[in-house]
Amino acid sequence: MNGKIYLTPGPTELYPQIDKFVIEAINENLLSANHRSDVYIDIHKKVVQNLKSLMNIPDDFDIFFVSSATECMDILIRSTVRKNSFHFVNGAFAERFYKTSLELNKVADSVTVEYGESFEFTEINNKPELIAFTQNETSTGVYLDPEFIYQYKKLFPNAVIAVDIVTSAPYVNLDFSKIDAAFFSVQKGFGLPAGLGVLITNKKVLNKSLELKSSGISIGSFHNIPDLKKFSDLNQTTETPNVLNIFLLNKVTEDMLRKGIGKIRQETIEKAELIYNFFDNYKYKPFVKNKKDRSPTIIVIDTRDETEKIKSILKSNGIIVGGGYGKFKNSQIRISNFPGQEKFHYEKLINILSKS
Amino acid sequence: MNGKIYLTPGPTELYPQIDKFVIEAINENLLSANHRSDVYIDIHKKVVQNLKSLMNIPDDFDIFFVSSATECMDILIRSTVRKNSFHFVNGAFAERFYKTSLELNKVADSVTVEYGESFEFTEINNKPELIAFTQNETSTGVYLDPEFIYQYKKLFPNAVIAVDIVTSAPYVNLDFSKIDAAFFSVQKGFGLPAGLGVLITNKKVLNKSLELKSSGISIGSFHNIPDLKKFSDLNQTTETPNVLNIFLLNKVTEDMLRKGIGKIRQETIEKAELIYNFFDNYKYKPFVKNKKDRSPTIIVIDTRDETEKIKSILKSNGIIVGGGYGKFKNSQIRISNFPGQEKFHYEKLINILSKS
Repeated sequence: MNGKIYLTPGPTELYPQIDKFVIEAINENLLSANHRSDVYIDIHKKVVQNLKSLMNIPDDFDIFFVSSATECMDILIRSTVRKNSFHFVNGAFAERFYKTSLELNKVADSVTVEYGESFEFTEINNKPELIAFTQNETSTGVYLDPEFIYQYKKLFPNAVIAVDIVTSAPYVNLDFSKIDAAFFSVQKGFGLPAGLGVLITNKKVLNKSLELKSSGISIGSFHNIPDLKKFSDLNQTTETPNVLNIFLLNKVTEDMLRKGIGKIRQETIEKAELIYNFFDNYKYKPFVKNKKDRSPTIIVIDTRDETEKIKSILKSNGIIVGGGYGKFKNSQIRISNFPGQEKFHYEKLINILSKS
Repeated sequence: MNGKIYLTPGPTELYPQIDKFVIEAINENLLSANHRSDVYIDIHKKVVQNLKSLMNIPDDFDIFFVSSATECMDILIRSTVRKNSFHFVNGAFAERFYKTSLELNKVADSVTVEYGESFEFTEINNKPELIAFTQNETSTGVYLDPEFIYQYKKLFPNAVIAVDIVTSAPYVNLDFSKIDAAFFSVQKGFGLPAGLGVLITNKKVLNKSLELKSSGISIGSFHNIPDLKKFSDLNQTTETPNVLNIFLLNKVTEDMLRKGIGKIRQETIEKAELIYNFFDNYKYKPFVKNKKDRSPTIIVIDTRDETEKIKSILKSNGIIVGGGYGKFKNSQIRISNFPGQEKFHYEKLINILSKS
């Protein structure tokens, strides 16, 4: 590394020892190995087991490796929605999920809140086949209490409850028995290079995709759920995957399991408190006013249009933070707080800003 | 590397110095950099220019980075086919392209030849919107003369002529003015880790996708052509891409340009002649009988059901070759001959087999 610390929303600081793991993959010729070979199958099997242990994912859920979280949205809509989806829109990534449904020619309804705010209970009037939640909005730093999500599972037992946990995995403690699908990408909380999306689905998703397919609706060809399932049952992927990232995810989840998810969550909370406490008493305040809606992993600060100044001060001291998302580019900064990032990174950030 | 030489169809032997390039990417924090940042944009721009120079791709073609060649088939069908596609099927990957069209609920017609053989001129009776060719069949080692493909561009000027060059790029010398789309993945002729597909398309593909979209047909959401185009015009991708592989592709294409594509092609032919000459006079013969149909880059040998024996002899001497594809698993071996693989690798292989 060149001495800089990346506290960006992702791609972000690489998980410790990634360089060592990459060299190991090259030296062991893993990147030349066939993706139907025992050496690949063994890694695939392990990483699925690790993710299930780490995130408490029930055994009857499938874990599919695709290319990005955006792709997961596409797969979920085309696999499970004949006509209607419903979207809780609290930022740009929730909006992306909603637009994905429209672009796939579905009837997408939504409830939208102001950026930085969260939802009140909302009645849904049509009968959605999929209800989409962005549990941790990377564009706004709003964290949605999983309990809010679970109540819709009770109200709509036939709908697929789909949860974007792109920047909250593996921190978020989801009860998978109360949702049907979740997805994330690895360049966030797992600190890997970009280029791998992870889609977690239950039998309802598979069955719905088979039902749509048998009724003559195209559920897509590339990365369709029944094919993904067929190969994942063999601990393989449909096509040659990003083997390097699957190998690295195995290494990182191994390390996280060694450390323990309880400790990772506790440290995340402690680091988040440190950061929010500082900014609550600083000239630039947290964007999310309601403390219960504040994400522990994506912390958004209003900069009163001084984003460039703050980024530049931090950069000259070796710390890179993200700018605001979209229209907030120049009026916010975004600071990530992922498991691979150390408390002293934030102490350093606070120390620099305190003096400026 | 652990001393083994991978002469597999891909994933295959890594291009020389990949380990050095990966370390460079990590040390320069490239894998933590944002994919909208100048540092990424600069690499994206360079690799597009390099590919255009290396493969003589006209400036008005677009180059999109996606996740795999299989995905490219999906993108091309859903972006350009309202109803009819036509497929020249000479092996398992051509069959995959054909099935992709069926799975996307299109009317796909095809002409199929026996594995190991190539096509006579075939009349096409419906008016296909896309005609699919597998220019180098990785499952059979059949190489399709580009002139065969070009004649259909003349006959069907409104159709999209789509060419799978997965295992012939960058060796194959295509005249892009006589086709509309081509695609490959990087773990073959470019010797990279798997996880990146490259899709090359012209304005006809873009215009057809816009036409379908405006007539109310879904052209897909994730990786739809108009969005891919919008971001590639900014030297970016729609979502966070496999930045490492794009960086490595830049390094490898730089090296190939230094060497010169003429020299790479000449060396490929020389190595192919060495291999075919040996097997033509050996107890196990090349699968493709007609010399003009033989692929220089994927060489398939009939093993009279002794695949395991041959693979095992070679493996104990440090050389890994591929088994046959699908039903030929135990009756063929497949040997790749890519630019990063050296002549002495094949001399060693010949030496070992000569003695056995």
